[in-house]
Amino acid sequence: MAMIDTYLNLSKEAFYVYKKTSNSEKSAFLEEVALQIDAIREQLIPTASKESHLPEGRITGELGRTLGQIRLFAKVVKEGSWIEATIDHADPERSPLPKPDIRRMLRPLGPVLVFGASNFPLAFSTAGGDTVSALAAGCPVLYKAHPAHPETSRMVSEAIKVAIRKSNLPKGVFQHIEGGVDIGQELASHPGIQAIAFTGSFKGGKALFDTATQRENPIPVYAEMGSVNPVFAFESKLSSEMKALAAAYVGSLTLGVGQFCTNPGLIFVPEKLATEFAEAVLDNLKEVKAGPMLHEGIGKAYYDMLKSMEGAEEVQWIKKAEAEDMHLGNPTFVRIQGSDWLKDEAFQEEIFGPYGMMVTYKNSGELKEIVTALKGQLTCSIWAEDLEVENSMDLIREIEEKCGRILFKGVPTGVEVGFAMQHGGPFPSTTDSRSTSVGVHAIKRFARPVAFQDMPTQVLPAELQEENPLGIWRTVDGIWQK
Amino acid sequence: MAMIDTYLNLSKEAFYVYKKTSNSEKSAFLEEVALQIDAIREQLIPTASKESHLPEGRITGELGRTLGQIRLFAKVVKEGSWIEATIDHADPERSPLPKPDIRRMLRPLGPVLVFGASNFPLAFSTAGGDTVSALAAGCPVLYKAHPAHPETSRMVSEAIKVAIRKSNLPKGVFQHIEGGVDIGQELASHPGIQAIAFTGSFKGGKALFDTATQRENPIPVYAEMGSVNPVFAFESKLSSEMKALAAAYVGSLTLGVGQFCTNPGLIFVPEKLATEFAEAVLDNLKEVKAGPMLHEGIGKAYYDMLKSMEGAEEVQWIKKAEAEDMHLGNPTFVRIQGSDWLKDEAFQEEIFGPYGMMVTYKNSGELKEIVTALKGQLTCSIWAEDLEVENSMDLIREIEEKCGRILFKGVPTGVEVGFAMQHGGPFPSTTDSRSTSVGVHAIKRFARPVAFQDMPTQVLPAELQEENPLGIWRTVDGIWQK
Repeated sequence: MAMIDTYLNLSKEAFYVYKKTSNSEKSAFLEEVALQIDAIREQLIPTASKESHLPEGRITGELGRTLGQIRLFAKVVKEGSWIEATIDHADPERSPLPKPDIRRMLRPLGPVLVFGASNFPLAFSTAGGDTVSALAAGCPVLYKAHPAHPETSRMVSEAIKVAIRKSNLPKGVFQHIEGGVDIGQELASHPGIQAIAFTGSFKGGKALFDTATQRENPIPVYAEMGSVNPVFAFESKLSSEMKALAAAYVGSLTLGVGQFCTNPGLIFVPEKLATEFAEAVLDNLKEVKAGPMLHEGIGKAYYDMLKSMEGAEEVQWIKKAEAEDMHLGNPTFVRIQGSDWLKDEAFQEEIFGPYGMMVTYKNSGELKEIVTALKGQLTCSIWAEDLEVENSMDLIREIEEKCGRILFKGVPTGVEVGFAMQHGGPFPSTTDSRSTSVGVHAIKRFARPVAFQDMPTQVLPAELQEENPLGIWRTVDGIWQK
Repeated sequence: MAMIDTYLNLSKEAFYVYKKTSNSEKSAFLEEVALQIDAIREQLIPTASKESHLPEGRITGELGRTLGQIRLFAKVVKEGSWIEATIDHADPERSPLPKPDIRRMLRPLGPVLVFGASNFPLAFSTAGGDTVSALAAGCPVLYKAHPAHPETSRMVSEAIKVAIRKSNLPKGVFQHIEGGVDIGQELASHPGIQAIAFTGSFKGGKALFDTATQRENPIPVYAEMGSVNPVFAFESKLSSEMKALAAAYVGSLTLGVGQFCTNPGLIFVPEKLATEFAEAVLDNLKEVKAGPMLHEGIGKAYYDMLKSMEGAEEVQWIKKAEAEDMHLGNPTFVRIQGSDWLKDEAFQEEIFGPYGMMVTYKNSGELKEIVTALKGQLTCSIWAEDLEVENSMDLIREIEEKCGRILFKGVPTGVEVGFAMQHGGPFPSTTDSRSTSVGVHAIKRFARPVAFQDMPTQVLPAELQEENPLGIWRTVDGIWQK
């Protein structure tokens, strides 16, 4: 389509200008983006709340997180060490051949295609983590807006565009594109796109991955496709803190009507404690009202998945949910034996919404079988006394193979934005377990190393100049220094 | 196939033991590998030379490089900072929610499948860069031996196995597998394999990439598939150093009978200097004797490709090569106009062997068109006076988009093994431009980040313990420190 070429041409033109801008210019631009979004908060919050059916309080929190995230990347870009500057000095005296001067750093990949998520209309959407980490890396962004919150997306897009103008950057640095699945796929297959970031369903993410790896020049796809975030409850811990843990579990399971990527949809409980735990969960669930889901499509999918589960005889319904209104997500909780759960991979599928499955296990042998069968996850949580952890380190090393983040306290919802966060895990939770979509390391997804050999000093990038004018951390002849 | 499962079961068992070994144990193991290979050098060098048809002097150099590489990774593993330890401390007082303690580090991916290369029977084969960087990262290796040097491969494999026994490691840490393309594909599609490393042809690398991305759980593929490594000769530089540059070019083009991934198969020369440069190249080429190629298949492919080129009217033959013996690679040099070269992508195809194509360009406008049309490369070389470099920075920024390493002096052959090397580039030169197959950074291909949240201190990996017992560089609350 000619329109797609126009987007890509603008993006490419912008790339050559944008990749020349200094760290402090890029940083100032990101600060300006935060400022411009903050300036429209009074209109933005009610719009986002209305479109997503998420309460204004939640949207206000999400806006704070979004702005904090943009400002964190502004700091990281200004500080500059993220590009992994590495210098190996020449040795003209080396025999048999002189050693050249080689200097390596990360450089931006080029135009990045970002897909927004329905469940975070701000933090994982238009100016969310993917867009902002790509911009921070020096890549122009083509943003495919999520149809569930079009007005919110347009408002944020306008704020970014104001920041672009104020920063004297080319307009191709950020482009807002509306449309359906077709236009998304067409963009993904365009040779000008150099990477794709996506948060959403397995079906959507996998389709993009297939397009991007099967096109003539394959490109990286960072698709975060959700997971069921298993909780492993150990006997001592669970029996001594039964009530508090049940309350924490239900809190996490029903937070945001269960519409988080890190929602704990699966919990493994020792058989002998299962009935007591189920009752404690039920007590808590009774207090939770059905909440509005993001949109009717998600509500319908939730109830359809539950219905299809009704045929499974192995499943015992602790709390059943009926659809009175497709918009309202009623919490559900079911129970199944470990041996039955192991028989069918379908029990590992995510049911997006406030749905929890308790799997009972007989002993540590069965638990080991369960871990072996488990698919890739964003998170796994271990509820165990310190002594239980120490005695289960072999199992925990296997659990580690199945996820990107492993928690020893609390619940998986609530993903910190910081330096150490890893939000990503083995397939099918994401398409690239080597990456994170949350936290500072997300920037590295959009860069690749380039080595400059014997480059004339007067044209070396500032990051690689001998006197280190930017004062960044570098590896010089194998030694870390600043 | 049952045999494949046996390999993978051994590998997986070994993984859980091997990933528990300390940095100093892994490092000592790698040192032992180097020692054991060095101990068989007297038998190894003639065997490798006989099987590859490369002279013993070259093999001796390659052995030195291979041992140096193993010892470099031993050092990197012992030092330990490569795992990017990152600690974000808890803040129990934070409101509205307390901040958890999160600690992140790189962890090994699991069993890695490595394919050897025919043109480096030691440095890119059995105990070559891919195998050793995977072992250094903590991954067991399944090595698919290259059929062009079976005895060499077996000898090195035995040396590794001695080192495994001496280090008390499980035998699944390294497995040597012989067979054809079928067994390679079967291994690549096995769910137990977590990453693939390959050096070889586009056809071979792309087939593995397709298998690995289309299987049920896609995995990363690091395929280095070669390139034509363009040299861009600028007018002032070329006219003032014509003879020396022609000699350097021919030296690089015919080194190892042109059988290097970084062989400069393409050179762009200003039209007005082209005839003079062609004559200077021819003078040098006359002095080069046809050398033995790696095996007859490669010789046949070389002459077949040359023959197919004969139909192209646009191509002028400066030095034609006839096959007197399929084992002997006769150097070839051809000339074509930039406008003709631009018309057909086939002129960008690698002809593996001592084949060079000189493309003449009229002006900087045509050179820009050429750069735009260029496919992804491992290297690009700029032969220009400092002033010509300064005046061409926009063009050089575009050249940078097409390669992983950009040289401003000398020739692309001779890939340094160090900290700053980048041996990898945009597709089709590799399948993952974010990675390098040479140098210290190669280790990161075989690891992924894992975050440990609120992990009990007594079970934290040493790298993440508060007191930093390994003395590695870490990011603590956003600050680099040791």
